[in-house]
Amino acid sequence: MFPFTGLDFQFRIADIIAKKRDGFHLTAEEIRHVVRAATEGHAQDSQLGALLMAIRLHGMDPEETLALTKEFVASGSVLQWPKEWKGFLVDKHSTGGVGDKVSLPLAPALAACGCKVPMISGRGLGHTGGTLDKLESVPGFCCQQNPAQMLKILHTVGCCIVGQSQDLVPADKIFYAMRDVTATVDSLPLITASIISKKVAESLSALILDVKFGEAAQSSTMEEARILAKSLVSVGVSLGIPTCALISNMDSPIGRCVGNTLEVVEALECLEGAGPGDLRELVTRTGGYLLWLSGQASSDLEGAEKIAKTLDDRSALHCFRAMLEAQGVPPKIARTLSSKSSLRKASHQELLRVETTGTVNLIRAKPIADILNVLGAGRSKANDPINHSVGAELLVNIGQHVEKGDPWIRIHYETPLLQDKQKKILQEAIHITEGPCFTPPTLIREIIPSDCKKEDGMSAVQREGENS
Amino acid sequence: MFPFTGLDFQFRIADIIAKKRDGFHLTAEEIRHVVRAATEGHAQDSQLGALLMAIRLHGMDPEETLALTKEFVASGSVLQWPKEWKGFLVDKHSTGGVGDKVSLPLAPALAACGCKVPMISGRGLGHTGGTLDKLESVPGFCCQQNPAQMLKILHTVGCCIVGQSQDLVPADKIFYAMRDVTATVDSLPLITASIISKKVAESLSALILDVKFGEAAQSSTMEEARILAKSLVSVGVSLGIPTCALISNMDSPIGRCVGNTLEVVEALECLEGAGPGDLRELVTRTGGYLLWLSGQASSDLEGAEKIAKTLDDRSALHCFRAMLEAQGVPPKIARTLSSKSSLRKASHQELLRVETTGTVNLIRAKPIADILNVLGAGRSKANDPINHSVGAELLVNIGQHVEKGDPWIRIHYETPLLQDKQKKILQEAIHITEGPCFTPPTLIREIIPSDCKKEDGMSAVQREGENS
Repeated sequence: MFPFTGLDFQFRIADIIAKKRDGFHLTAEEIRHVVRAATEGHAQDSQLGALLMAIRLHGMDPEETLALTKEFVASGSVLQWPKEWKGFLVDKHSTGGVGDKVSLPLAPALAACGCKVPMISGRGLGHTGGTLDKLESVPGFCCQQNPAQMLKILHTVGCCIVGQSQDLVPADKIFYAMRDVTATVDSLPLITASIISKKVAESLSALILDVKFGEAAQSSTMEEARILAKSLVSVGVSLGIPTCALISNMDSPIGRCVGNTLEVVEALECLEGAGPGDLRELVTRTGGYLLWLSGQASSDLEGAEKIAKTLDDRSALHCFRAMLEAQGVPPKIARTLSSKSSLRKASHQELLRVETTGTVNLIRAKPIADILNVLGAGRSKANDPINHSVGAELLVNIGQHVEKGDPWIRIHYETPLLQDKQKKILQEAIHITEGPCFTPPTLIREIIPSDCKKEDGMSAVQREGENS
Repeated sequence: MFPFTGLDFQFRIADIIAKKRDGFHLTAEEIRHVVRAATEGHAQDSQLGALLMAIRLHGMDPEETLALTKEFVASGSVLQWPKEWKGFLVDKHSTGGVGDKVSLPLAPALAACGCKVPMISGRGLGHTGGTLDKLESVPGFCCQQNPAQMLKILHTVGCCIVGQSQDLVPADKIFYAMRDVTATVDSLPLITASIISKKVAESLSALILDVKFGEAAQSSTMEEARILAKSLVSVGVSLGIPTCALISNMDSPIGRCVGNTLEVVEALECLEGAGPGDLRELVTRTGGYLLWLSGQASSDLEGAEKIAKTLDDRSALHCFRAMLEAQGVPPKIARTLSSKSSLRKASHQELLRVETTGTVNLIRAKPIADILNVLGAGRSKANDPINHSVGAELLVNIGQHVEKGDPWIRIHYETPLLQDKQKKILQEAIHITEGPCFTPPTLIREIIPSDCKKEDGMSAVQREGENS
């Protein structure tokens, strides 16, 4: 195994920390040493904290970032799939946004196109819940599925949405848990290694990343998002996965529903061929890129059309229901679930009304998410309970004309109750101008192409972005 | 007590880490929060590691450094002395050098002048042993003395040399233990807070610092040493202790003996009014400054003469013997201990001989210390055992003419045995030139005066330094 004792490990680690502290490049061997030491429990927590801070302050070049990602993958096991699935294994990762329920319609839509989607997702921290929290609004849904169970579900259904199992990328678990408390979350190489290592461990044939920027995103500017997207694509491609990234705006919520149960309902609308246009756009476009990247469509737009078809002919809805059933939802519920189904509603609802007449030009996602978080829709600490029924429905669109007194948002809440000062903050989330109606800004602003398909990648969507 | 739960503590700490990460000034209240959290066990080790690295990379301004030192002191208890001792409580701290046995003659010399010297010392890490290790060469010597025992010894003897007790500056213990493994040892504010907090906890009336620079010192250049010395003096004075610092060279060993038992023998020579000149210079000068700073001499030079008198009339030796007896050495040994006493000798001795004829112009301390360390005179890890009898005696002085074949160093060793490659390294430690004899360089190069006595502080020694 390893020719070091615990103490040698620590001395070696101190040298490696000192090197990064002084701004030098770490070799792949040094990165391997420190990641193994962390995984095997030979590194002290104080050492990992110091190293994370040195990385946060001095950064890592692409070579180091790639090595870190590789070592994260090597720290655990990698999912194994039947040979005949090669070329069909696809997944999407989003850097997180308010109202982002894209995975819910996307995974079954891809499955309906013949893909295998072993989607490993997370729970939310801050904002509202994560994809797993949303799915747990459906009675009986179980996100704990081991690799054997995942294999079985992919065989029969084609997609699953599950939590990270214990033996997948354990090094990432250790570093990820420390980043929050050590103020090292916003480090490009650490974000890159964390995201891509988990996707590499899924043994994918293609990956699409939705990198968000704006007030309610981790990256506040498009330039920041672009840098992150390029880092993610570069490492993904280097590790053998055809990878593309979208840069999309995250100032306003995606769709019209925010909150776990409400988002499932809206995802069902999308799966029924309806629902808000921006949600459908993200689902079809991300799916389209995956079909194109994995060679199942001749262009991203042709891929997007295929995805749209699975929504319109309800084959995606069929896969979604089958996935829910395979993941523990009682057949009676799973087989009939629709946007009209009676999922658990919150005890209280309150409408807020527009205070001036004019055109809606912005609905800020961040204050809405912050208030819903306090009302119990999200969590601020890992393992906090979530109230799935808490949420908000937007009743107006950006660009729409509104009259003073028109209802614009419905808040669903339980305990704690909605406070007046919270209503005041929510009222500041809607911006109304006196000007004429206008076209809302483009959601997807740019595509970062997979290096290996650079020319093709600069396609329709990027041209759209240039016009916006 | 504290209005925070463990979790709140950690969230607050992450914010404080983020502030230092971004290079901002931490308030006294923020520093208090993090030091208390560390001391009370509410901070995670990873957080302290990240904070140490952020401090190492961004530094701390004098105000922050002062606040950190204060909070270190406040983390534990402070020694309490009889009112009538005010003005007589003095101590010295050295940043550490090879052959530095100054504390051994200095503490009893000061006691012989009427001072009270509650010297809290450490063990060596790297190089050869620390002051406590040296004293433990004397059979029965016990460095574990609680505050009540220290009070009693100071009453009867006037000086004690003890280890740090559990309840003194516990925050420093936590940070100090982490600095080695997190590559954050060489941080000016962290060094300052660590050294000065322990001295403030001794409730001193005056403090002298011996800040060393050179190949075998922590600071390699005089400029580095000067910056550290000024930081130490400034914080010491701000916390109410009249403080001065010497800047002294640490290229060659202090005195002619290196190694624990051998250094005790050399300290005894000094206490008998003899021994090497550089050792006597450091003892009398540091002591002289303390007598002057505490108002017991009208100048540092007058103070130095008083110290010299206690060495020459053996009153310091008497105090040293009394201190040993008070700290556990059997009276029969303590009362007769002299440089002629038979302390335990190493089983093997070997002479190395000069390879060319000429003038000795340098004897490098570092390779000698490194080899002795490997032979067991020092430790590279806390709690390693030490072989007290291992050491080296220099047989020539810098500036002396030597003939090829003259013995220049005697190595005392046990197991492990002295290897040929080690002898080769040792031979490179002595530099011989063909030129004429010359005067060796001044040992003490500069004085950093206590701010409150700035004019007087620029005294004789500094003028000497200018001439060197």
